[in-house]
Amino acid sequence: MDGYLAVVAKREVRRYTNRSLDDDVLTKILQAGRASGSAKNSQPWRFIVLRDRARRAELAAMIMAPRNLEGCATAIAVVLTNERLRFDAGRVAQNMMVAAWALGVGSCVNSVRPDAQDRMREALGYPAEATVGTIVTLGYPAPGEPHPDPKAKPEKVLSRVDRRPLEEIVSYERYTS
Amino acid sequence: MDGYLAVVAKREVRRYTNRSLDDDVLTKILQAGRASGSAKNSQPWRFIVLRDRARRAELAAMIMAPRNLEGCATAIAVVLTNERLRFDAGRVAQNMMVAAWALGVGSCVNSVRPDAQDRMREALGYPAEATVGTIVTLGYPAPGEPHPDPKAKPEKVLSRVDRRPLEEIVSYERYTS
Repeated sequence: MDGYLAVVAKREVRRYTNRSLDDDVLTKILQAGRASGSAKNSQPWRFIVLRDRARRAELAAMIMAPRNLEGCATAIAVVLTNERLRFDAGRVAQNMMVAAWALGVGSCVNSVRPDAQDRMREALGYPAEATVGTIVTLGYPAPGEPHPDPKAKPEKVLSRVDRRPLEEIVSYERYTS
Repeated sequence: MDGYLAVVAKREVRRYTNRSLDDDVLTKILQAGRASGSAKNSQPWRFIVLRDRARRAELAAMIMAPRNLEGCATAIAVVLTNERLRFDAGRVAQNMMVAAWALGVGSCVNSVRPDAQDRMREALGYPAEATVGTIVTLGYPAPGEPHPDPKAKPEKVLSRVDRRPLEEIVSYERYTS
């Protein structure tokens, strides 16, 4: 899929088919995260792959949208080893998700519930100074969900996307409200 | 350029040629930011395009790497209208930069100096509850800088990237140190 198309067409996919992710596809998505830039190339992340269904069901109650984690094919918990670097967590998650989209795989980001931070740390076993930046759920899109389409046209995709128009969010040289 | 390649090959470019960005290329990069996902689709961002050279020179002293802003063709200040949503700022910046790379344009993210936050706010005119999530500098790469290459092979790019190996950052089902 074309790179510009992959970036602008990537939508959140929250319901997935039963099809699993092949190992090489998962590896490619992990590599997309690994290759991401970060502050001073500090790479403040670890990726915990969650493939086991029972494991995902156990963790699901600790996130805001449990069904995403229960129903996905695989998830990747992005553990931030420096919790101040949430900007970099966003970069690495977006890299993984755009790469996934280009490979035909749907995804979305998931947040840990504020009241479940300690339980999540205990369950996954990461150290006190770390946090979960996001949990990326992955899978092939269920019917009715957005689908990666290599033949889509960026202009058409952008004309339909549920976002404020460019004129409302762009200004020149200075902020205008 | 292929989408997976664009994601994994995108490197930080900090020195640029004198070639300016055509309006349609700039618009495409802004659209890539606009299309990005965010918490509850809140789109907590505004984009301030910095094309004027004198303007960029004025702002350069307020960021960590002044030469990036002085020497770029165009910059986009990503103003976060909710400063807690730095994760989303990372997503939108990565979208813009991967799109730029796919279009042959180099970029990097830039941070405002901690001691210049108030001056930056005054200079750009954004409200008190907002902050600059990042300033993305853009331009065609100077000789010696990483260049977007549509013919590059992802495996080769990944074998040379300055990052920790996958084995060190990936674990399964649980964090391992």
